[in-house]
Amino acid sequence: MNAYLINIGDELLIGQVVNTNASWMASELEKNNIHVARIVTIADDFNDITKTLSDALAHAEVVIMTGGLGPTKDDITKTALCDYFDMQLVMHEPSLANVTDFFTKRGLQISAINQMQGLVPDGCEPLLNKVGTAPGMWFERDGKIVVSLPGVPFEMQWLMSEYVLPKLQQRLGTEAILHKTVLTCGIGESFLADTIEAWELALPTNFRLAYLPEAGKVRLRLSAHGDDKLLLQQQMDEQLAKLIPLIDTYIYGYDDETFASVIGKLLIERGATLATAESCTGGQLGHRITEVAGASAYYLGGVVAYSNDIKEQLLGVHTDTLTQYGAVSAQTAEAMAIGCRRLFQSNYAIATTGISGPYWWNRRKTIRHRVDSYCIRQRS
Amino acid sequence: MNAYLINIGDELLIGQVVNTNASWMASELEKNNIHVARIVTIADDFNDITKTLSDALAHAEVVIMTGGLGPTKDDITKTALCDYFDMQLVMHEPSLANVTDFFTKRGLQISAINQMQGLVPDGCEPLLNKVGTAPGMWFERDGKIVVSLPGVPFEMQWLMSEYVLPKLQQRLGTEAILHKTVLTCGIGESFLADTIEAWELALPTNFRLAYLPEAGKVRLRLSAHGDDKLLLQQQMDEQLAKLIPLIDTYIYGYDDETFASVIGKLLIERGATLATAESCTGGQLGHRITEVAGASAYYLGGVVAYSNDIKEQLLGVHTDTLTQYGAVSAQTAEAMAIGCRRLFQSNYAIATTGISGPYWWNRRKTIRHRVDSYCIRQRS
Repeated sequence: MNAYLINIGDELLIGQVVNTNASWMASELEKNNIHVARIVTIADDFNDITKTLSDALAHAEVVIMTGGLGPTKDDITKTALCDYFDMQLVMHEPSLANVTDFFTKRGLQISAINQMQGLVPDGCEPLLNKVGTAPGMWFERDGKIVVSLPGVPFEMQWLMSEYVLPKLQQRLGTEAILHKTVLTCGIGESFLADTIEAWELALPTNFRLAYLPEAGKVRLRLSAHGDDKLLLQQQMDEQLAKLIPLIDTYIYGYDDETFASVIGKLLIERGATLATAESCTGGQLGHRITEVAGASAYYLGGVVAYSNDIKEQLLGVHTDTLTQYGAVSAQTAEAMAIGCRRLFQSNYAIATTGISGPYWWNRRKTIRHRVDSYCIRQRS
Repeated sequence: MNAYLINIGDELLIGQVVNTNASWMASELEKNNIHVARIVTIADDFNDITKTLSDALAHAEVVIMTGGLGPTKDDITKTALCDYFDMQLVMHEPSLANVTDFFTKRGLQISAINQMQGLVPDGCEPLLNKVGTAPGMWFERDGKIVVSLPGVPFEMQWLMSEYVLPKLQQRLGTEAILHKTVLTCGIGESFLADTIEAWELALPTNFRLAYLPEAGKVRLRLSAHGDDKLLLQQQMDEQLAKLIPLIDTYIYGYDDETFASVIGKLLIERGATLATAESCTGGQLGHRITEVAGASAYYLGGVVAYSNDIKEQLLGVHTDTLTQYGAVSAQTAEAMAIGCRRLFQSNYAIATTGISGPYWWNRRKTIRHRVDSYCIRQRS
């Protein structure tokens, strides 16, 4: 099944907003075996919308549009859809009740313009938006599907997850799809591919493998489809049991895990605590660690020791260490980690030192953080 | 002048990569008075490329393409361009020398495949890529312009800034363009618009005003174009002299400044120092401050006091304050700021407390940091 995405909005064409909707949608559709063949960004313009929709339906089975559903006069997606499908706007009472509720809950008066958010073309299936005011819309014609969603990322994601992806999945038949992502680090994509080549070549035909590289990491997404979900899960387990031993020293987690969440899990298992001492990273390490839900169970806190004085006074780094080896050195990182562990009375401490200099390019100044040394200390 | 952007790459269609190139290019073109009418993302596919290019040239004066210029067989943009313009690939010696240099500097052997990066269609103007290996290409036909650039953001940005934008500017004539962005916070877009309505309506016709809202802030970008740069600068100064008094309590900076850079500038002016004490933000505040070049001149460091013990021991927050008002309270934030200033012997300290709880949505767990209280203390 092929899909086209149409993202409508002047803010995208002047570069004010980065189009994160397109990548999120493409990634979710891909996981559901629906291939995005083209993504088009256009203005809130009647002719542009109808022309692009017409072209998309000539090439794709599914067209998903975002944007242009707000209450202002700039937003004309509904008018264009009515024209294209030869429909009339009618009030969708549950959506009107939803909008009214949205305003009264916030103690605001609902205006006539806001009430119009409840209007939908009479031939579509409205998708009640419980996290916003503009309903989504599902159209079918000649065996093809057109979906219109609000452009607010949070609302779009909710409507996709709640209605659109399940409905598309239903349309694809009763076939089950399973995914498992193996997260690796410390090995390049091509070396990884060489290492698992024999296993990859022997994968059953209902399996697909995607390499998803990013800085320092490669995610391996294994997908399988078939009629029998139990059998599929069994096949997946078998394939993972063969894959994992081949690369186990490089695997740091699975699926949505991150370095920080994996570290957190290990600390909880051990009933251990962690503190951080940062120089050049300026607090970013602590920030990453506390992005994990429940981090307060093991993370006690940290020190950002930007000046040498603070390294000495708070972390007890010796003046000799700083003068002999420099602030950016393995010796200073180690002394910081030892001092940090002592200060916070934690089981583990991580310390970083490095260069955080201005970096000039194209008359613009940006900052690069380069960690040269780090040290992890454990209570002996 | 109207432009179409064509971003080529399978990685964009499976959602692996967010298309930040499109927003960067659109924003830079817009600043140069070139309006992006459509952005199309397509696969590394010969027919898709030629068909999309043909369609783009039917509607736009300028077409800028990115991607598909790598050395692997997936990358077929050059072949498609040769076919479309009826040209042959020839070796561009400066680009070949550049690629060779790139490899020898890194002590790597250059392969035949990598040498092919120096090939360009014989009817184009090659744009020597000094920050990468794939040259950009500039084509002209029937008064229209087609540019092909590598998809690596850093390389694309360098080639745009170095060649493409100046050449397009030259093409637009000798007209000068000036921009000034006024950064405001603490006032909503519609209130801001009401406040400056009379001034906005009286703007000379060669001026344009853009409202660029983001969370808690509105940027006002004032653009002017004309033949005489000196006169233009004078007009701009006059308009700013009228605008600024209307909204001066909301203005925190200009152009590329950020909260952190403005705070840094003020601290440097006063010869003052800053330290931070963070709870829920976990180090993010320190991270933001140290993103500014030269922050070590005023930022001494910080404490991430995630546990109450650390708030008491390191920052000297009284147990009474914590039990009576709670860890998330204005009183605790104030005590943290006072303790932080004492610990770091800084002129100023900023402290934050708040809720950092797990937030569940659609079976995914994410973390929201909500700062409930903050306190800024100055040495009395």
